[in-house]
Amino acid sequence: MIRSIRPARGEDAPAIWRVIGPTIRAGETYALDRDMTEADALAYWLGADRETFVAEDDEGRIVGSYYLRANQAGGGAHICNCGYMTSAEAAGRGVARAMCAHSLDHARERGFRGMQFNFVVETNVRAIRLWRSFDFEIVGRLPRAFRHPTQGFVDALVMFRQLGAPEG
Amino acid sequence: MIRSIRPARGEDAPAIWRVIGPTIRAGETYALDRDMTEADALAYWLGADRETFVAEDDEGRIVGSYYLRANQAGGGAHICNCGYMTSAEAAGRGVARAMCAHSLDHARERGFRGMQFNFVVETNVRAIRLWRSFDFEIVGRLPRAFRHPTQGFVDALVMFRQLGAPEG
Repeated sequence: MIRSIRPARGEDAPAIWRVIGPTIRAGETYALDRDMTEADALAYWLGADRETFVAEDDEGRIVGSYYLRANQAGGGAHICNCGYMTSAEAAGRGVARAMCAHSLDHARERGFRGMQFNFVVETNVRAIRLWRSFDFEIVGRLPRAFRHPTQGFVDALVMFRQLGAPEG
Repeated sequence: MIRSIRPARGEDAPAIWRVIGPTIRAGETYALDRDMTEADALAYWLGADRETFVAEDDEGRIVGSYYLRANQAGGGAHICNCGYMTSAEAAGRGVARAMCAHSLDHARERGFRGMQFNFVVETNVRAIRLWRSFDFEIVGRLPRAFRHPTQGFVDALVMFRQLGAPEG
């Protein structure tokens, strides 16, 4: 059902906002200011320090977006970091899985040797299950580092995988 | 031997660069671009998203500097992050210890509930020993996430502590 995953263009901004806005406003999975403006959110998601992609469904609708960037500078620049968001309407249809596979291949093309997720909220069990299926390991646990809007203080996980052979 | 730790002022920039420049150029302990310009380094160290302090010795010389900032936005904004650098000439004289104690107290004043170091290079054993003495725990290990200029790929640690009572 994902027709293509391609680099984001400037004119995609309104469609990207329709994907990322509800997730940011919900404040349950990303450590971003829930009240950030659309302009600030798009400046973040499409920042010059990263590559941003969109996932289009069979009808050409943008149903997901992700970014890929170096997670650190200098001696840490060989490890990348990604953030993924899927529109609520498209949940459960493999969009995040397709984007993650795409990002791993793209990261290898860019020469990255590993991928790290810095802050996976422990209540985001669907995401954790998905990253695990892509061989990410939990390499860290940040105790009570996330204040969930309804569940209070919960842990955040650091997940990591080396980048070797292409995804099968 | 530390006379005071006080907020950095604009006119401290040259002295701060004398502290942080050699550490950045060495590239052994911070995941920063070793070749970054002085202007970029100072823009980073004195960024608007953080509070920056300097440590002065008995003769008023700036021998150390640190910053404190929220480590994440939104639901992660109750955890802070710090970076500390000491001039090579002042190494072993308790400057980092004094700055760490100061930062923990300041973080509590600011209402932070925890402090996290995202990327402690495993070969930086003096720093790790110091953070441990301040009750930081290793909560994560990033495999081969740092390319040390002479030791090759080494691990980086995530260290964390909750903020409770004042330092004794």
